[in-house]
Amino acid sequence: LGKVKGRKPRWAVRASEMSKKTFNPVRAIVDSMKVEPNPKKAMISLSLGDPTVFGNLPTNDEVTQAVKKVLDSGRYNGYAPSVGYQSCREAVAAYYNCPEAPLEAQDVILTSGCSQAIELALAVLANPGQNILVPRPGFSLYKTLALSMGIEVKLYNLLPEKSWEIDLKHLESLVDEKTACLIVNNPSNPCGSVFSKSHLQKILAVASRQCVPILADEIYGDMVFADCKYEPIATLSTNVPILSCGGLAKRWLVPGWRMGWILIHDRRDIFGNEIRDGLLRLSQRILGPCTIVQGALEHILHRTPPEFYHNTLSILKSNADLCYAALSAIPGLQPVRPAGAMYLMVEIEMEHFPEFENDVEFTERLISEQSVFCLPATCFEYPNFFRVVITVPEEMILEACSRIQEFCEMHYQGAEGAQDMECDK
Amino acid sequence: LGKVKGRKPRWAVRASEMSKKTFNPVRAIVDSMKVEPNPKKAMISLSLGDPTVFGNLPTNDEVTQAVKKVLDSGRYNGYAPSVGYQSCREAVAAYYNCPEAPLEAQDVILTSGCSQAIELALAVLANPGQNILVPRPGFSLYKTLALSMGIEVKLYNLLPEKSWEIDLKHLESLVDEKTACLIVNNPSNPCGSVFSKSHLQKILAVASRQCVPILADEIYGDMVFADCKYEPIATLSTNVPILSCGGLAKRWLVPGWRMGWILIHDRRDIFGNEIRDGLLRLSQRILGPCTIVQGALEHILHRTPPEFYHNTLSILKSNADLCYAALSAIPGLQPVRPAGAMYLMVEIEMEHFPEFENDVEFTERLISEQSVFCLPATCFEYPNFFRVVITVPEEMILEACSRIQEFCEMHYQGAEGAQDMECDK
Ligand SMILES: Cc1ncc(COP(=O)(O)O)c(C=O)c1O
Ligand SMILES: Cc1ncc(COP(=O)(O)O)c(C=O)c1O
Repeated sequence: LGKVKGRKPRWAVRASEMSKKTFNPVRAIVDSMKVEPNPKKAMISLSLGDPTVFGNLPTNDEVTQAVKKVLDSGRYNGYAPSVGYQSCREAVAAYYNCPEAPLEAQDVILTSGCSQAIELALAVLANPGQNILVPRPGFSLYKTLALSMGIEVKLYNLLPEKSWEIDLKHLESLVDEKTACLIVNNPSNPCGSVFSKSHLQKILAVASRQCVPILADEIYGDMVFADCKYEPIATLSTNVPILSCGGLAKRWLVPGWRMGWILIHDRRDIFGNEIRDGLLRLSQRILGPCTIVQGALEHILHRTPPEFYHNTLSILKSNADLCYAALSAIPGLQPVRPAGAMYLMVEIEMEHFPEFENDVEFTERLISEQSVFCLPATCFEYPNFFRVVITVPEEMILEACSRIQEFCEMHYQGAEGAQDMECDK
Repeated sequence: LGKVKGRKPRWAVRASEMSKKTFNPVRAIVDSMKVEPNPKKAMISLSLGDPTVFGNLPTNDEVTQAVKKVLDSGRYNGYAPSVGYQSCREAVAAYYNCPEAPLEAQDVILTSGCSQAIELALAVLANPGQNILVPRPGFSLYKTLALSMGIEVKLYNLLPEKSWEIDLKHLESLVDEKTACLIVNNPSNPCGSVFSKSHLQKILAVASRQCVPILADEIYGDMVFADCKYEPIATLSTNVPILSCGGLAKRWLVPGWRMGWILIHDRRDIFGNEIRDGLLRLSQRILGPCTIVQGALEHILHRTPPEFYHNTLSILKSNADLCYAALSAIPGLQPVRPAGAMYLMVEIEMEHFPEFENDVEFTERLISEQSVFCLPATCFEYPNFFRVVITVPEEMILEACSRIQEFCEMHYQGAEGAQDMECDK
């Protein structure tokens, strides 16, 4: 009888390989930063990509009312199709449809947040043993998901000196016959950068030449400051097949609602039925996002007043400007000016801070001395930078910047000083 | 440069193996049943395990109001921890806590529906190449998920003549050194059966003797008719480690809301930190269920009036009795009396319906002649039965039963008749 045959069974329950391979570097790095804030200073956290934390950026009333109306109707409590209600898919398609990149309901798959959109897109495009091209610095979930599925990650460089444009030569050099897709994140977390039309065209040219489909992470789509324009990458191509991932999280300021989507752009029928069918199959594992948010989608997308978006962006832009100006003035730091999203990256000139081994130690000490928490960019595979979240209230940004200044002044060593330190050792 | 080196790249985007292995047998069977209903009779669908379809079983007003209050508060729009808000995990723990199976917040993981609870539980317990023990007949998602992860499925028999108790000998004979877990679904979909305390103890004895952890699918927990008692399996064991999966879908009549949970019962520390940590890691892939439902959980669990549950169950019980009585009277059919959940299984004495190859053909013809749609139990790996959903309004059940009667009378062949048919061939 089963186990009995050989030896007496013993309890030996181990976690699966897959669970062990599922690894969130941000969690790992942050958890290992075991530092206490300075008890004399209130903690200011500029670390979380969650715009709702401080209450200064509430969602729009139309958004909330839309869900309440759905609840009252009682008509959205049952199971939806696993890819979402047809009418809601239509609403998303209508919202993003344009002559250069037409969309219909059948091109939209609703998901549990943009995270699940990315998960499904990767799961349908790549087999274990294949590789994907991922930006460095970049959002950590790509690697977390890929490695847990046995997919290899190849990091292509972004260039801070070119406002974080892609190093296209480097990108193209990484493509091989096992490359399953290219992830393009625009606007970018953690960079706050926004690609120009001509840069996007060059990226598309690489994908087209190398025949690599694109997974476009456009969760910050349309979140660009007034002086710059956001171009959905699919509007610039007629042949490259693209899965564009998005959602309500950032632009509508409701990340907890877990409403995301995949837009399938495939005008040359390269994905064909196979990828669509694969996405449908994969969606059946957990059966789509919450129906009361689905039911509100049409209202949310089509009735949220334009002022709401403008207001969010003008706050972000103003915070970005303040933060950039304040940090630019600090010796030893080199912020890169953002053009969208909710972040700003800052280079630490490590040679001027010889006390600190790296960005992790720098940000650790910033917590213990100044109670200011920024994520070390090692979390994004990009050492010697840190990331600042600019959704926090203005006074907090200013206070944080002035504490960062105090911190840097305390630890900055001019060229001479740095050499002295070396000699002391 | 990458692909360019060898031959000119060509577009060749294929869906991943995993997406191809993700296979929903219900969809496959139902889609292949290409039959049109009889245009002279209105369609009656008894096929969907969704109690909200006909509006006769609305959720309770407290449930809806709780979510509206959360929306008004504006406090639940941000990211929750990927395993759920601490306070909401506490609310679930408090609701299910009892002396025989104590639970704390840390033992609760919130998920996107019970489907994702099952997915995470399987993903943490089993590696590709291992096997899991799954009931036959049983809910198809277990196999769908397992095969997509490369986990083998071994089906153990339920015994209709014993009110669908498990064939314990058969169960135990299937255990081997590669068995990662035993899935116990109680109350059962598709059977509507409820295990007695003593039967559950015998199941636990097998698990304990063979050292196999249990994945308990208790999504229909507490949904049992008045004459019978529901025992959460974890309350009957002190040593077998159990992951119990549940959610709001069925008892609170809101399946679309996608709120589920895993309760970790591990009083002997056999799962230990490893399984808990594995579940935490896996939860970070898509970041938990919708926060506005999370925020309402405490209110939903603790303030829904008891009359609501009683009312649902008395409707289900009354429908079950009517349906059972009506179908029992039909020559050629053998319904099995249910004790809970929302289903009833009916045996087709195929020898009396020689016209039909099997349950799929029987139910197909029931659609084309009588416009009544029941799922053939081949969907649950159990040929020659069909499943009836008993959440539909009483008049529909009665009308459906009388049409089924007409259908059976039309096609029934007594022993002689059946033989004549054979001879005719
Ligand atoms: C670049 C990027 N993509 C995807 C996500 C995930 O979005 P969601 O919360 O909708 O899963 C985030 C969240 O921070 C992000 O920064
Ligand atoms: C036995 C069983 N388990 C799990 C589920 C899935 O529940 P949920 O809708 O919460 O994912 C169902 C749904 O029908 C079911 O019947």
